Amino acid sequence: MRQNIYKLNILKLDHRPVRDKRITTHCALVARAFGCSNFFYSGINDIYFENNVKDVCKKWGGNFKKTYLEKPLSFVKKEKNDGTLIVHLTMYGEVITEKIKQIKTNKKILLIVGGPKVPKEYFEIADYNIAVGSQPHSEVAAISLFLYIFDNKLIESSFNSDFKIIPNKNKRIIYSQKK
Amino acid sequence: MRQNIYKLNILKLDHRPVRDKRITTHCALVARAFGCSNFFYSGINDIYFENNVKDVCKKWGGNFKKTYLEKPLSFVKKEKNDGTLIVHLTMYGEVITEKIKQIKTNKKILLIVGGPKVPKEYFEIADYNIAVGSQPHSEVAAISLFLYIFDNKLIESSFNSDFKIIPNKNKRIIYSQKK
Repeated sequence: MRQNIYKLNILKLDHRPVRDKRITTHCALVARAFGCSNFFYSGINDIYFENNVKDVCKKWGGNFKKTYLEKPLSFVKKEKNDGTLIVHLTMYGEVITEKIKQIKTNKKILLIVGGPKVPKEYFEIADYNIAVGSQPHSEVAAISLFLYIFDNKLIESSFNSDFKIIPNKNKRIIYSQKK
Repeated sequence: MRQNIYKLNILKLDHRPVRDKRITTHCALVARAFGCSNFFYSGINDIYFENNVKDVCKKWGGNFKKTYLEKPLSFVKKEKNDGTLIVHLTMYGEVITEKIKQIKTNKKILLIVGGPKVPKEYFEIADYNIAVGSQPHSEVAAISLFLYIFDNKLIESSFNSDFKIIPNKNKRIIYSQKK
């Protein structure tokens, strides 16, 4: 898994439970599925979101921690001072495929995604402002495309859980109990 | 653009405005950004969602049509009878990278994504049930990863609009009026 070599964590800015009902959950599930261990979020502290993610982890396994941040910019500054590379995903950024090699030279990375309006401080503190397409689309898509291009492989197919899916063309759902 | 060779449309099943507030919008924006022309959705007819997408298209350009379907299964059956390949994205399906070559031999494709519970009829009618990872994650991620792997290239950077982003490392936002 990536985490053996890289420490790649995610920060989702400005979570708003009503507007973002499932968007932040989807961001977290994508991060988990690609093997990230830490998901930070700011905005509104949301126990409903946290429980949703906890339920998935309980059933499907994996070591995945979500943490609410009251002061996300201070957190990013501290991470940067500690040597973490700050990568901000934005449709206004540089094209990912032109920068991924450089980004991967750093083993500690914090990937930031926002909503529609990210304060300019994040554009400024970021070592890289990176776009996975210069069109409006989705922070969920941005995280998933970044992680896929970063890893150059698909989502992990199993974690340390009781349940595992056997990829299956017969259009039936199969669970397999893992030993 | 892909559409010159392939006709690749998207169907999002079972839209529920409260639960899916922004998920369906994100699915549509990802489809548009990757150059799809038609986005179908079923569930609840939602003028709020449609207006959101219309606003993006008005500003950022592109030829993108969204259509509400009252009877999505009948629509899928008709598409299949007309020779369209039905690809259902599901975490239970076969691994995309093993099937993408076969899928691309057909030039007309309907890509179906659901929510948590997709009726078994869709698993049955699909020519391919395809997973972009056998873990719970996101229909937005599934569409974006499928389209990226399908096209083997990133999101289009410009459409026929007045606005265009110049990919930019200087952490400033630049719009450029296209001639």
